[in-house]
Amino acid sequence: MANTKENSQAHAPKAKPISASRSEMAEVVLPAETNPLGKLLGGHVMHWVDIAAAMAASRHANSYVVTASVDYIDFRNPISVGEIVILKSQVNRVFHTSMEVGVKVFSENALTGERKHTTTAYVTFVALDSDSREPKPVPPLILKTAEEKRRWREAGERRKARLAMRYKKRRSRD
Amino acid sequence: MANTKENSQAHAPKAKPISASRSEMAEVVLPAETNPLGKLLGGHVMHWVDIAAAMAASRHANSYVVTASVDYIDFRNPISVGEIVILKSQVNRVFHTSMEVGVKVFSENALTGERKHTTTAYVTFVALDSDSREPKPVPPLILKTAEEKRRWREAGERRKARLAMRYKKRRSRD
Amino acid sequence: MANTKENSQAHAPKAKPISASRSEMAEVVLPAETNPLGKLLGGHVMHWVDIAAAMAASRHANSYVVTASVDYIDFRNPISVGEIVILKSQVNRVFHTSMEVGVKVFSENALTGERKHTTTAYVTFVALDSDSREPKPVPPLILKTAEEKRRWREAGERRKARLAMRYKKRRSRD
Amino acid sequence: MANTKENSQAHAPKAKPISASRSEMAEVVLPAETNPLGKLLGGHVMHWVDIAAAMAASRHANSYVVTASVDYIDFRNPISVGEIVILKSQVNRVFHTSMEVGVKVFSENALTGERKHTTTAYVTFVALDSDSREPKPVPPLILKTAEEKRRWREAGERRKARLAMRYKKRRSRD
Amino acid sequence: MANTKENSQAHAPKAKPISASRSEMAEVVLPAETNPLGKLLGGHVMHWVDIAAAMAASRHANSYVVTASVDYIDFRNPISVGEIVILKSQVNRVFHTSMEVGVKVFSENALTGERKHTTTAYVTFVALDSDSREPKPVPPLILKTAEEKRRWREAGERRKARLAMRYKKRRSRD
Amino acid sequence: MANTKENSQAHAPKAKPISASRSEMAEVVLPAETNPLGKLLGGHVMHWVDIAAAMAASRHANSYVVTASVDYIDFRNPISVGEIVILKSQVNRVFHTSMEVGVKVFSENALTGERKHTTTAYVTFVALDSDSREPKPVPPLILKTAEEKRRWREAGERRKARLAMRYKKRRSRD
Repeated sequence: MANTKENSQAHAPKAKPISASRSEMAEVVLPAETNPLGKLLGGHVMHWVDIAAAMAASRHANSYVVTASVDYIDFRNPISVGEIVILKSQVNRVFHTSMEVGVKVFSENALTGERKHTTTAYVTFVALDSDSREPKPVPPLILKTAEEKRRWREAGERRKARLAMRYKKRRSRD
Repeated sequence: MANTKENSQAHAPKAKPISASRSEMAEVVLPAETNPLGKLLGGHVMHWVDIAAAMAASRHANSYVVTASVDYIDFRNPISVGEIVILKSQVNRVFHTSMEVGVKVFSENALTGERKHTTTAYVTFVALDSDSREPKPVPPLILKTAEEKRRWREAGERRKARLAMRYKKRRSRD
Repeated sequence: MANTKENSQAHAPKAKPISASRSEMAEVVLPAETNPLGKLLGGHVMHWVDIAAAMAASRHANSYVVTASVDYIDFRNPISVGEIVILKSQVNRVFHTSMEVGVKVFSENALTGERKHTTTAYVTFVALDSDSREPKPVPPLILKTAEEKRRWREAGERRKARLAMRYKKRRSRD
Repeated sequence: MANTKENSQAHAPKAKPISASRSEMAEVVLPAETNPLGKLLGGHVMHWVDIAAAMAASRHANSYVVTASVDYIDFRNPISVGEIVILKSQVNRVFHTSMEVGVKVFSENALTGERKHTTTAYVTFVALDSDSREPKPVPPLILKTAEEKRRWREAGERRKARLAMRYKKRRSRD
Repeated sequence: MANTKENSQAHAPKAKPISASRSEMAEVVLPAETNPLGKLLGGHVMHWVDIAAAMAASRHANSYVVTASVDYIDFRNPISVGEIVILKSQVNRVFHTSMEVGVKVFSENALTGERKHTTTAYVTFVALDSDSREPKPVPPLILKTAEEKRRWREAGERRKARLAMRYKKRRSRD
Repeated sequence: MANTKENSQAHAPKAKPISASRSEMAEVVLPAETNPLGKLLGGHVMHWVDIAAAMAASRHANSYVVTASVDYIDFRNPISVGEIVILKSQVNRVFHTSMEVGVKVFSENALTGERKHTTTAYVTFVALDSDSREPKPVPPLILKTAEEKRRWREAGERRKARLAMRYKKRRSRD
């Protein structure tokens, strides 16, 4: 069973379904958030990705969370002033005190109704105990659908790639 | 049928169901948005209510919209730093070039999972033509459920009350 | 006498004239605060109305205050980037631990000198004790002019309408 | 007569009294504007001084204005989160296409009602023609009271000191 | 020679050394940018990384730039309110109309003088022609030191990994 | 020797070279920070001058600092949206518990590579003890180059002018 390992530790918090973390955020792109070409700043998208992901993570863990890492993000379609940005997030997999959250970003032009998929991002968070501010165990995930299981599996592969990348970065003089 | 009147005008835009305007926004309350007691500023709630409502209005009308009025709002439960604010909006009724949007605001404490209903607000918008910037007709609404019909009916009563209030305000020396 | 009732409670704070709460705020509309059409966001006006009103309320009560409700607001004239927004507020009436504040909003075009009345808003605040953070009694108002008495009377009528509306909202399933 | 010189130029805009430029701005210090000690950032005071002064300058000149210089400012009393900042400004003297504006800054503690004079600042602006964006003549000032005349005289002395300082700065290698 | 390939195209812009793009940015972490635990938001770090990287890219390309992608970032050390964040960026390699920029982020505690390396990020930008707003060729890089050559080589490996990852993401149903 | 006087007090903190305080900050001017003419607000320049200067002061003093005063600033060249603003700061001289910091501001147009000197500012800070929040002695400066000695000398002259100006301001009724 997918969540066997997470369940094995004593006194672990009670397992929760993925639906418990599912979050949705939407923002209208205001002139204050654009570059001189009238396009939403890439850094602003990343800021919203972080907020939307933190929302899913803290809902799953019922605790404060801090961002540990963000995977490769590419920005396929620039987003213009006046468009709506929609961010959908959910926990994909938990790793003792950390969680991977997936975030899909869409832009929508309210004048035409057209909606575009802008990017998919994976953000990892660590749950913190509110008193000690030390990492604390995260509830195991209950997987239900085939899609949830696929995401859980792919999150494991990404974690392996992350650990390899982190090891490589630390070795590099850079 | 509830939307008979809106349909009667020539060349009117095509009717749309209420689901086409349904919007959801969520925000995490950051320290930057609180008063010295650590509570979300009332004016910030109103700002988000306006954005969430404008999202539903521009999705329904497929046009730019400007805020025409906001009905009485009360703030039952103060919202604290770190909590999540969820805003759900949909068009309740259209009046030729204007629309009433209903917004429900909830606060959620991610640490406990507790969710509270903070307020319900009604915001009226006028749709603007993107070239002339003059008011333009809004698509009629297709009502499906009994609840949608109840909201449509109540929106009509609120409009009557608004027109009376506006008339009274203009007469007043205040 | 208008403030008889407020004066009757034992150990009530000392009565103050309306002039003690009178406040004035002005802002220049910067591009950061406008929508894609170059107009000040309705939600921003509401944010400033809340700040200007809170200023009058905290000056009268000499305490922290929280927003309890905002009456119906309509926005007659859209305000453009570069214009000056002027907000004038004063306490209209006190109700034991709460106060109604009136706010008049004007916009001024510095290039032409033209000034327009944009809206009038009524905001109700509750005064909080800085230690217990519980509601605390507010000083009674000393009414001097006929206009102050008229506002005091009308604030009472609005309060009745508010209580009726709140009751209705709570009953509604919405 | 004090304003003789300004009046002498042909086609000059019509003279205006100092009262036409008088402006007042007030802000509540929110946590977002403070340093880690809970004190309002000095740079934020300067930002508000610039806005309050620009308001007086553009009201006098009925034009866009750009900041040309700011005189020596000292900050006598640090301002705390939750306090109200009041800024009062008026044009002190005009010099063909530029104007000196005086700004007095006060802080007020709403809990105690205590008000302190925080600083006095002098800001010089240039009026710009809205089409050519070149400097344009500013209306002469009509001086009425002895205090207005004193300020007008002192503004002339400050201008001399400024011109000397600018000359010295340009010579310096710094 | 390392930059042979970039030089081969006709009418290419004139090659520039890496020093021409080197940029440094510093920010003091204000309370407005922190989470409820007083730590700088991860999304804010990403926003500053994007700005610092864009600075290097636009200095190299002498053009507007848009963010195309951001590589894996990990956040080793949380940054506290009051600390100084230093971001150093330079172009590592150019690929016809795009560039990879490396950004190193440090935090510094001014009270102790301690400086920590927080993260290293790689951001890719596309240069845009200011008239057509279409991608335009970027000047080739002149590599001088062994370290610059190492970074150039590693940027090529990262690009290969990015292309693989993008291909995989597009195939995935996610 | 230049720093004799500062060294004379018992238990004074250890002297530091000017290089220890040297700071550099850079910002890209976003639409949110401009006036309706697309120019950076003068008050925003001042805000950044204050932050850049505080960085140098807190690095020298290894303590929290508060702004005491800002000398005359003139703005020679308006800065446009999309330009880069570079601020360079260092401590020029220390006076027991206070320091004068010099800040040079440049604007750079990334499209043309042109860099302009916008202004030079002098900001004075007081160092605060983090427990008592009272002023505390600042480390003496070690002067090395002729330029550092010239700045040190000129900072002394400016201080004399400041003290005279402050005395005059306090006497004035203004």
